[in-house]
Amino acid sequence: MINFEIHKTSSQCRARAGTLTTPRGDIETPIFMPVGTAGTVKGVTPENLKDCGAQIILGNTYHLYLRPGMDVINRFSGLHGFMNWDRPILTDSGGFQIFSLAKISKTTEKGFDFQSHIDGTRHVITPEDAVDIQTTLDADIIMCLDSCIPYPADEETARKALELTTRWAVRCRDQWVRATDKKNALFGIVQGGMFPHLRRQSAEELMALDFPGYALGGLSVGEPKNLMMEIADTSLPLLPEEKPKYIMGVGTPEDLVELVSLGADMFDCVMPTRNARNGQLFTSRGKINISNAAFKQDTRPADPECGCYTCRHYSGAYLHHLYRSRELLSYQLNTIHNLHYYLHLMRTMRTAIIEDTFSDFKAQFYRKNNSNGSGG
Amino acid sequence: MINFEIHKTSSQCRARAGTLTTPRGDIETPIFMPVGTAGTVKGVTPENLKDCGAQIILGNTYHLYLRPGMDVINRFSGLHGFMNWDRPILTDSGGFQIFSLAKISKTTEKGFDFQSHIDGTRHVITPEDAVDIQTTLDADIIMCLDSCIPYPADEETARKALELTTRWAVRCRDQWVRATDKKNALFGIVQGGMFPHLRRQSAEELMALDFPGYALGGLSVGEPKNLMMEIADTSLPLLPEEKPKYIMGVGTPEDLVELVSLGADMFDCVMPTRNARNGQLFTSRGKINISNAAFKQDTRPADPECGCYTCRHYSGAYLHHLYRSRELLSYQLNTIHNLHYYLHLMRTMRTAIIEDTFSDFKAQFYRKNNSNGSGG
Repeated sequence: MINFEIHKTSSQCRARAGTLTTPRGDIETPIFMPVGTAGTVKGVTPENLKDCGAQIILGNTYHLYLRPGMDVINRFSGLHGFMNWDRPILTDSGGFQIFSLAKISKTTEKGFDFQSHIDGTRHVITPEDAVDIQTTLDADIIMCLDSCIPYPADEETARKALELTTRWAVRCRDQWVRATDKKNALFGIVQGGMFPHLRRQSAEELMALDFPGYALGGLSVGEPKNLMMEIADTSLPLLPEEKPKYIMGVGTPEDLVELVSLGADMFDCVMPTRNARNGQLFTSRGKINISNAAFKQDTRPADPECGCYTCRHYSGAYLHHLYRSRELLSYQLNTIHNLHYYLHLMRTMRTAIIEDTFSDFKAQFYRKNNSNGSGG
Repeated sequence: MINFEIHKTSSQCRARAGTLTTPRGDIETPIFMPVGTAGTVKGVTPENLKDCGAQIILGNTYHLYLRPGMDVINRFSGLHGFMNWDRPILTDSGGFQIFSLAKISKTTEKGFDFQSHIDGTRHVITPEDAVDIQTTLDADIIMCLDSCIPYPADEETARKALELTTRWAVRCRDQWVRATDKKNALFGIVQGGMFPHLRRQSAEELMALDFPGYALGGLSVGEPKNLMMEIADTSLPLLPEEKPKYIMGVGTPEDLVELVSLGADMFDCVMPTRNARNGQLFTSRGKINISNAAFKQDTRPADPECGCYTCRHYSGAYLHHLYRSRELLSYQLNTIHNLHYYLHLMRTMRTAIIEDTFSDFKAQFYRKNNSNGSGG
């Protein structure tokens, strides 16, 4: 199980710096978790991840359940041994991927009934299954199965989904206690769409179940940025201060800065890895596209202020060349850079929280990014 | 420039173990050179290459000339700085790629007139240009521009191509002396198709030019394996014993074993890297295809006898999963394995030569591979 200790809360905002202790190592919060969808963070090795400062990664239950499948994972006693990663892992419940990726999916009281996007096979995942699968994966942090809704969604749809999510959370908790003796830390997921009173209802219902941590789900699903921030702003304080608060699937560097200042502790997003594969690099001066002709002859690193493996050893011109040539090394070097950027940003924020200089950090961050936080 | 010292010649065959000294480091021969076509050995980092024991890599002049282009390479004072590789590099002359890849190519006395396969632009490469471009790349070993022929080719075609290759070799040598003061070591390339007397003619004409090393070109172009071996068998002894002998573009592990026993010192081939990307792994027990269902649940390394990074950290089941999922990490891990296999094979042969146990090595190699040397 886990333990969460908060060392410092900013006097200037709700940002907090803590340590999340797990059996596989400590996690210094606020933290970003690189996404390792199918048992690998796309394009990089575990050593690359550690070099970037990754303390915990995320695995996608939906993908791993379908391929390689739990029979294979069982032979390795979990995902860690299978993928050669010995630090903590958080797995999602699979709900969001079933909702967004499965060929056909039907939500019933019982759970999800869906067809694999890989081979069309039929599967049923109940809340109990979601806990069992994640226990087989032996992730250090596992998530309750939740019911997702599209954006925009009306209040009735949002209310029904959150209430189903609560009933599923009860079943997840029961299975977690009964079948696993609380082996891995189970987090509840707050739903409720873009309706603050529904978010409150969801948070209160889940808090009654006393999970070791809580997440905000259903954000960054297409809503305007200010709406996302409003929901996070009103929802985060509802969650117990002594427990980790995780915002799922978010976001841009600007999002992370804003959400940390609102009190969030944990994040995951495909943005640094996916954008890397599309040639977009996050730098101390904002985003750049390495395919831009300006880099063709540039002997300097893509980000001269960056200390990552890529920027220490390769020029913008080389990254430009690799990307234009669609060389495999392009994806690796770009991914290393972007993950380092994200993880370095989190470390910088943590230091600013501990030194109580978060406002200064934030002002400098936006000044350097030439950005007003609109993100991308 | 380079120096070549032979430490030991087998009493059982013509295999020899030597050291090729270059300004950027020593190369223990016989050696295999991983192919880094476009300024990167596809899928791996320079650190991966060093871990595999790579002492020298090959760059393709044709590709690098077209992209990134010599203006970019010049800014890095050569290919080494551009691609972050500080050990020796050999570049080919570009002739074979113009012959096999360029959209339209015309061979005249002057040189090659061709269209880029990337953007259709027109280019002319003369023997002098080939030396100049390779000098800009600052490869430690550079190659004369040679005229390639398809297989099969009649004697007249083969004779004309070899005689043109000789005239170009004279021009390459002149340019090398005049324009570069013999800065990098220039090798001559023996042509002559599948005609032993033409190979002899070519070798004699080139030896009169006193190059620091010699290569056999025009092999492994579709001819039967026994014909390739026959040409190598009759041609290698024609070359000066005190100089390195390089067989271009070859081959399978079995080819390397046979050709080392015939006295060849240097090799390059895309096979370990290309096959890795197609899921084919070379192992101590022969070739395997990692996509085979037999690996789905296999918790052992792909080659339990292998000491490479991949086999030390990952199972056959994981490699199978990555390959089936077309994950980027698949290409990297498979490539590391295959390059390690090739380079380890060369080291094993070198030890066997020095200990004068090459026959024993060879017998064991074929016994373990369950192979009669037919390769593939």
